[in-house]
Amino acid sequence: MNREAGKADIGVYGLGTMGSALALNLADNGFQVSVANREADWIAPFLTEAGPLGERLQGHEALADFVQSLSRPRNILFMIPSGTPMDVMIDTIKPLLDEGDTLIDGGNADFNDTRARSAALEGTGIHFVGMGVSGGEEGARRGPSMMVGGSTHSWQHLRPMVEAIAARHKGDPCVAHVGPDGAGHFVKTVHNGIEYADMQMIAEIYGMLRDGAGKGADDIGQLFAQWQNGPLGSYLIEVSAAALQSVDRRTGLPVVDIILDQAGQKGTGRWTLIEALKMGQSASAIEAAVGARGWSSEKSLRVAAEPVLTLGAVGGAVPSNDTLKHALLAGRILAHAQGFRILTAASTEFDWSLDLARIAEIWRAGCIIRSVLLDDFAAAFRGDLPDGHLILSPQITQMLQGSIPSLRKVVAAGASLGVALPALSASLGWYDSIRRARGTANLIQAQRDFFGAHGFARVDDEGAFHGDWNMIAPAP
Amino acid sequence: MNREAGKADIGVYGLGTMGSALALNLADNGFQVSVANREADWIAPFLTEAGPLGERLQGHEALADFVQSLSRPRNILFMIPSGTPMDVMIDTIKPLLDEGDTLIDGGNADFNDTRARSAALEGTGIHFVGMGVSGGEEGARRGPSMMVGGSTHSWQHLRPMVEAIAARHKGDPCVAHVGPDGAGHFVKTVHNGIEYADMQMIAEIYGMLRDGAGKGADDIGQLFAQWQNGPLGSYLIEVSAAALQSVDRRTGLPVVDIILDQAGQKGTGRWTLIEALKMGQSASAIEAAVGARGWSSEKSLRVAAEPVLTLGAVGGAVPSNDTLKHALLAGRILAHAQGFRILTAASTEFDWSLDLARIAEIWRAGCIIRSVLLDDFAAAFRGDLPDGHLILSPQITQMLQGSIPSLRKVVAAGASLGVALPALSASLGWYDSIRRARGTANLIQAQRDFFGAHGFARVDDEGAFHGDWNMIAPAP
Repeated sequence: MNREAGKADIGVYGLGTMGSALALNLADNGFQVSVANREADWIAPFLTEAGPLGERLQGHEALADFVQSLSRPRNILFMIPSGTPMDVMIDTIKPLLDEGDTLIDGGNADFNDTRARSAALEGTGIHFVGMGVSGGEEGARRGPSMMVGGSTHSWQHLRPMVEAIAARHKGDPCVAHVGPDGAGHFVKTVHNGIEYADMQMIAEIYGMLRDGAGKGADDIGQLFAQWQNGPLGSYLIEVSAAALQSVDRRTGLPVVDIILDQAGQKGTGRWTLIEALKMGQSASAIEAAVGARGWSSEKSLRVAAEPVLTLGAVGGAVPSNDTLKHALLAGRILAHAQGFRILTAASTEFDWSLDLARIAEIWRAGCIIRSVLLDDFAAAFRGDLPDGHLILSPQITQMLQGSIPSLRKVVAAGASLGVALPALSASLGWYDSIRRARGTANLIQAQRDFFGAHGFARVDDEGAFHGDWNMIAPAP
Repeated sequence: MNREAGKADIGVYGLGTMGSALALNLADNGFQVSVANREADWIAPFLTEAGPLGERLQGHEALADFVQSLSRPRNILFMIPSGTPMDVMIDTIKPLLDEGDTLIDGGNADFNDTRARSAALEGTGIHFVGMGVSGGEEGARRGPSMMVGGSTHSWQHLRPMVEAIAARHKGDPCVAHVGPDGAGHFVKTVHNGIEYADMQMIAEIYGMLRDGAGKGADDIGQLFAQWQNGPLGSYLIEVSAAALQSVDRRTGLPVVDIILDQAGQKGTGRWTLIEALKMGQSASAIEAAVGARGWSSEKSLRVAAEPVLTLGAVGGAVPSNDTLKHALLAGRILAHAQGFRILTAASTEFDWSLDLARIAEIWRAGCIIRSVLLDDFAAAFRGDLPDGHLILSPQITQMLQGSIPSLRKVVAAGASLGVALPALSASLGWYDSIRRARGTANLIQAQRDFFGAHGFARVDDEGAFHGDWNMIAPAP
């Protein structure tokens, strides 16, 4: 790094959980960091708590001083709430900047906003980078996975810093310049969509064990911990295993048993779906996961519903632990494949030339969905990908061969027993839809032509045709 | 109707399939109708084909003449492609209008556009009505179901005409003023979303019979025809039964067997989902139906996938015809319930005060989803609706009691045999999620707090809490 004398390499604005952690991580890696915050009185405590790292950190209460403290071309990372605050910030700071400076939005912004902000700054000489950061607080502090959008100019200046602070997978830093303008935030959004699906599927298996088999939280946690050593090995299984084995101090009960069953969401899962739908894509496992979170919030409906809506179970046994494990693996593979399909569609739609192999690689460490499976995906993307479809690559088809029968058994058991498995079912529904060369949409086309004269294509000829429907009297 | 001497009651602009049919329907019911069309040479043939009805029809090539031919306040119904053409039309015709005139968009417009157009015309004295029209060509000609948005002023002038031409259910015209601005188009969009789900579920049962049981199209059509006389009685079952029994003249094969299995879609299903997601709602059965249409269009992927993706069937038998019938009924109930939930959410979101009972009533005849089930829904909405939830009304819970076990058996069989049932599975996934007072989102909240410090609520206390996750070493 060529740093102007006495100046900092980067500015971090916003000292919340994630901003503080990233600033410390940068300092830890030898960079000079200026920090600032809307509430100026957060700055001093932050510097105090930084301890010895404080010598590489400097705080500035005035925005102009903050900007002036940075080596040019400046890199300013914003870790502030997305939406209007970011727009206000850009307007406020713009007059203080010079040509070649880069503003980086490290929050979970809507990629459409990032595209609009990039476009608005075009021609001003100021660069705008939307950067997805995954890994939570711990990741931000010790090594996140980062998905960087924006210009090559910005990437060249950011690269040494983000590569230094990123998580590493066998030495390979988990950060990449994935594409221009909104590409970084879009990739992060899809990451979060996959995260929703993965979390939901784990919760569904938990539900089968708890409600179907009557197992306690600790037992389920121990089982999940065993699964860490195998194809399901992942941060989310590790987290789930640890959480299920945690005890509530106040009651002595498993913590999960005293947690209210209403899940929150911050919008990235929903965004993934809306953007996918706009591109004509449906990611059913992610749809189911977003739906399940929404339905969970309707606690009063559920409490009212249980006594009046029939269970109507039709028998069947809870599958073995091994079957559950393989079902979860199949579901996880399918949910990821759906996520990557959205990236493929977006890459075409926005002309981003996304490198899916590289994206899989930078998800192998640091981020919430990191898993051994992403190793397999990265290898698959680097290998033979028939017609560009991940789902058809030999590595993946082989894994599915070993796990699809388990997914079938588990979905069937859930349906029979009345254990809700919306995401696992949705992943199987997609699988069974795309693996059948001759589907059932011919009937839908017949219906549409019948009532709406929409026309249909024939299997044995070119062109658009209509049925002689009026000649047919419906059977009595 | 108070009609100015020599003037027409209404103008219909756009002589495509739907516009022509509505103009003839209006004339048939004694109204004087002026027609116009972008391609003026469509007008003469239309008037010729109208035969004796021609005496109540007049055509005008020039837009100004068309407008001048209408009794004031004018009602002008546009049956033209949605989107830009409608905006261009409004700009062009506006200078020719007088205060109190009403422009009616009878196409499948995005309700957001309808809201924007209404807002843009506010204060000009020109009224804008977004009117959903369902029933296809035959419905438009003989009696459609119509969902009217817009002002009370417009409704008062339109009402005699739309009530005269509407389909009737036991004498009750299937048309209503459902709410202001975009309400009519929104309700139509949700109608179409339900239509997608219903068509898909019928196609799934067809798939089970064809691919699971090896039945031919004619046999399946005969079975569906039997189902017409019972709780599944509906236009879409009637259409499906007739279509399945239709024979292709060229080959002598069932028509459905020569129709390519790639379904088209025009956007309303997708819009339903996007709007639902924006309001935090998930209608899983509609999501699955939209997804299935999209996946059906990926024919080359499916052809490539079949030989390389394992079927991995795990046994199981095709359920009886009676079980299939009841499963379809359960799925249909749940898909409709999801659609009505979207209407409830929109009613709150946009302050529309939608009358769901009336909406169910005007869907009982004329529209594509008309069915005996809508009679039950209308009655349920008029009756005791615990906490406003259709799904909890005694009529509905009783129907579900008789049909849910069948849905379980069918979803389990589909999963076991490898027959894709995405919409039926999704409806069951929702049912099983909302009928469980204690769900599994507690684990999701534990995960979120663990990695993101999002906090959770307790079942036994108020406030937000965090777990002592750091104290717990994950099991090896």
